[in-house]
Amino acid sequence: MTKVVIGVMGAGSATPEDSLLAYQLGKSIAENGWVLLTGGRKAGVMDAASRGAKAAGGLTVGILPSSDTTGISEAVDVPIVTDLGNARNNLNVLSSKVVIACGMGLGTASEVALALKNDKPVILLKQTELTCQFFKSLASDRVYLASDVEEAIVLVKKILRQIPE
Amino acid sequence: MTKVVIGVMGAGSATPEDSLLAYQLGKSIAENGWVLLTGGRKAGVMDAASRGAKAAGGLTVGILPSSDTTGISEAVDVPIVTDLGNARNNLNVLSSKVVIACGMGLGTASEVALALKNDKPVILLKQTELTCQFFKSLASDRVYLASDVEEAIVLVKKILRQIPE
Amino acid sequence: MTKVVIGVMGAGSATPEDSLLAYQLGKSIAENGWVLLTGGRKAGVMDAASRGAKAAGGLTVGILPSSDTTGISEAVDVPIVTDLGNARNNLNVLSSKVVIACGMGLGTASEVALALKNDKPVILLKQTELTCQFFKSLASDRVYLASDVEEAIVLVKKILRQIPE
Amino acid sequence: MTKVVIGVMGAGSATPEDSLLAYQLGKSIAENGWVLLTGGRKAGVMDAASRGAKAAGGLTVGILPSSDTTGISEAVDVPIVTDLGNARNNLNVLSSKVVIACGMGLGTASEVALALKNDKPVILLKQTELTCQFFKSLASDRVYLASDVEEAIVLVKKILRQIPE
Repeated sequence: MTKVVIGVMGAGSATPEDSLLAYQLGKSIAENGWVLLTGGRKAGVMDAASRGAKAAGGLTVGILPSSDTTGISEAVDVPIVTDLGNARNNLNVLSSKVVIACGMGLGTASEVALALKNDKPVILLKQTELTCQFFKSLASDRVYLASDVEEAIVLVKKILRQIPE
Repeated sequence: MTKVVIGVMGAGSATPEDSLLAYQLGKSIAENGWVLLTGGRKAGVMDAASRGAKAAGGLTVGILPSSDTTGISEAVDVPIVTDLGNARNNLNVLSSKVVIACGMGLGTASEVALALKNDKPVILLKQTELTCQFFKSLASDRVYLASDVEEAIVLVKKILRQIPE
Repeated sequence: MTKVVIGVMGAGSATPEDSLLAYQLGKSIAENGWVLLTGGRKAGVMDAASRGAKAAGGLTVGILPSSDTTGISEAVDVPIVTDLGNARNNLNVLSSKVVIACGMGLGTASEVALALKNDKPVILLKQTELTCQFFKSLASDRVYLASDVEEAIVLVKKILRQIPE
Repeated sequence: MTKVVIGVMGAGSATPEDSLLAYQLGKSIAENGWVLLTGGRKAGVMDAASRGAKAAGGLTVGILPSSDTTGISEAVDVPIVTDLGNARNNLNVLSSKVVIACGMGLGTASEVALALKNDKPVILLKQTELTCQFFKSLASDRVYLASDVEEAIVLVKKILRQIPE
């Protein structure tokens, strides 16, 4: 039966704080029995979240922009090789029941916008006031704010209860 | 020889003011001998810009998200049928030498982010302070602000002179 | 109003005979007032067909697999930059009213299969008995055989009369 | 660490013989500890192979052409939602270490061609003489023939030993 997939989006070049947050987030996602989905690269938030999930024995999926698995995070179990470049960002969010943005960059901003465009719920984790205001102005009803991993997980549980199977 | 393609991105549900702006923008793009590229649908900014370009005898390209040409703007000369859904947004910006955002919505926000991610110059035309600040915070060196069509066209000319062939 | 787009698919490494055929085909397509669509690269059938169309004053579109216009045929007027790799093959055929295969290779074989899968009519131009038999066995009603350019053009006209606007 | 993913491609409308073959193939893939990848739909070869893999306790991935999980096989663990239509066929083969074609149709033919174009090894399982000849004529060095599931599994093992990590 289809497993619940939670997507964590974040930049390849992350601050140490964002990486730590991503690691804890990945770990909590795995502890809840959900599959972790990221952009799959051995960099920043993608790698940290995947390592966190593996530390808790979870299953990790990485949707790669490239045409082979070069540069993949070692913590990714199932690589999806797309050769789509940044167009793969739309797949990242479509394949996630809930999208969590951890850290911000141009790729992440495109993923938040695409997720909301595709009617996906998005949790903005520890984002700046500017980021929260911008996305709230475009889709206030599907944007959720969390100030730490615990709050984000509570929100995921709440959202999953509301999504029809 | 390859023609210069200028992309105009904007929501399918546009305000009358945005539609007028898009019409004038499309017209000016055609008057300068550039090809107009939009998302191709018979709605909002896409349709208005295409109609403006045709009024000035220009050539118009529409990159459609769907699997056929149903719902295409009658002012599109060359339809590119992608069946990619919102993943086609990445093609819109990659195929444009310069991207101009006219009006704002989730699709347009994703296109601005994807354009900047792909190192494309983006002109924000008559956007809110919040929108300008958000994208400036992510890529200050490739974001240009214009308050009317004339200013946007001057910026396009300036940017084209700087882009290597 | 939407122009009629005819797609010519063929390998980047073409025999001199295939290139000559592609050149004549591109020329005839332009002489009939149709837009020529190819894979856009400066190689083989794509380049030859585009040069033929330009020699007759036609309009040429090239749907590129890469993330920029490096390697584009100089005879392409409108480059569509996809960064989709071989997934762009599906766009080539979806964007064409009729698909003509000139020369054969793995990319071309995928385009013929995808065209037929998407219910597009396909003309096999001077193909081997094996190729004709294979595709006829999968979709006999949408596969047309032509032994020269003249026959292919007659078939395009016949097919266009049957396609609803 | 990255798991070994084996792709089984086959039509949504399969003969009972092809479905039985696909079921046995999925089962054997799981028994060997490999992840099964299919097109994910609750139809034909995709569904049968996934059910076989689950019967042996394996992990199954389904790369869907649609924008949500409607029509997904209940035997798919991890759905990848692409909204790419038939362009997703390129992802199916890029994400597989080895591609096995079981049954034949237009989608499957495009996947075999795309796999070979992307330099992937392809096993043609119980295909007709015509199909084998056609693909052998285009890429003789990467096309393998198997007359039953056992032979196919032996070939997969042999190919995996030759692929660099």
